[in-house]
Amino acid sequence: MTSAAAPKKDPWDLPDVSGLTVGVLGGTGDQGRGLAYRLARAGQKVIVGSRAAERARRAAEELGHGVEGADNAQCAQRSDVVIVAVPWDGHRKTLEGLREELAGKLVVDCVNPLGFDKKGAYALKPEEGSAAEQAAALLPDARVTAAFHHLSATLLSDPGVESIDTDVMVLGEVRADCETVQALAARIPGMRGVFAGRLRNAHQVESLVANLISVNRRYRAHAGVRLTDV
Amino acid sequence: MTSAAAPKKDPWDLPDVSGLTVGVLGGTGDQGRGLAYRLARAGQKVIVGSRAAERARRAAEELGHGVEGADNAQCAQRSDVVIVAVPWDGHRKTLEGLREELAGKLVVDCVNPLGFDKKGAYALKPEEGSAAEQAAALLPDARVTAAFHHLSATLLSDPGVESIDTDVMVLGEVRADCETVQALAARIPGMRGVFAGRLRNAHQVESLVANLISVNRRYRAHAGVRLTDV
Repeated sequence: MTSAAAPKKDPWDLPDVSGLTVGVLGGTGDQGRGLAYRLARAGQKVIVGSRAAERARRAAEELGHGVEGADNAQCAQRSDVVIVAVPWDGHRKTLEGLREELAGKLVVDCVNPLGFDKKGAYALKPEEGSAAEQAAALLPDARVTAAFHHLSATLLSDPGVESIDTDVMVLGEVRADCETVQALAARIPGMRGVFAGRLRNAHQVESLVANLISVNRRYRAHAGVRLTDV
Repeated sequence: MTSAAAPKKDPWDLPDVSGLTVGVLGGTGDQGRGLAYRLARAGQKVIVGSRAAERARRAAEELGHGVEGADNAQCAQRSDVVIVAVPWDGHRKTLEGLREELAGKLVVDCVNPLGFDKKGAYALKPEEGSAAEQAAALLPDARVTAAFHHLSATLLSDPGVESIDTDVMVLGEVRADCETVQALAARIPGMRGVFAGRLRNAHQVESLVANLISVNRRYRAHAGVRLTDV
């Protein structure tokens, strides 16, 4: 008798995410604006969130492509997928204040906890292990993933840049959630979303940005990461 | 009056390293053998080291390309550049025993401190911060760098593989030392050596191997890392 095992699922067979609304908390910061711009330009419905609704609305207007602005709570409530792009020092407080709004949502943490001194950037280690694990601890009813750490805000925001040559490492505990985020990354020309492990391995992905900052200084580049042989 | 600042040094202007002898501590393990093989095949003089000289000599014979074998102490003494490719659990003890032999040498740590359980691989955090920083603490008279973390031993050791499509992130405190290691990486077809920061940012580079292991499982790949826009 031969084995009746199901054929292994193709890891590139990703869901259609074109109908999802994506919220970006911290959508008025450099990283958040850049991500919002790229996703909206790719046809995604995007809502940028900020503490002040008025600031979010102004940012949305500048971004165009149908982007809307709202305060963080409204942004979270109205979105299916919520990207967390706030500064690290506002991370805990922002998420604590949105526990109810984020219940049941697919949360994508892209925050890089870094310190800076005269020798450059260095990794900060959150007590939960990583920013993503802190989000998971603060949001027990949300589905937390981590992604979009290594993108250059400069490239994201430059309308003249058609394609961004980089992979997005996606981390999480639930395969379907990771695949949704991978599909979202893949909507942006030049990007792939690549599954890269569980949340307990998020710290090094977040911290690698310190190294990319060194690379950028030495080579005057906007370095990204591509995984080879994948 | 115009500025008289010297023109910025081209970061790709790297030294000629073809005359250097490279030792590989742990040169009978998978990673060490693979690196020794690639460097020797590229024309570098290589000595593989092992606790037992006889085992090192057998490995050297199998590797060919003029590779020699010696015990770790001889390997260190006879080499200009010494790659540390021992298992993490032997890292401290091996280096403590070679303090004199490694004095003045350019040491390249490529050890990835990882733990494994049924959920896969995860990062271990050495008390010194990283394997490379542990090496620097144990070897105050050596010039410690970190590099060669993300290479697939399978690809390195496969004689049918002509070129390995990956970048080698090189970390260290002294520019000239990093450049020597970068030049060494660049001798292997397909590889570039890219400066990627100080030793205090080595932990995330070492730990990223846990993520690459997840990538390899999901995509049945031998994943490497390429830095884009550099």
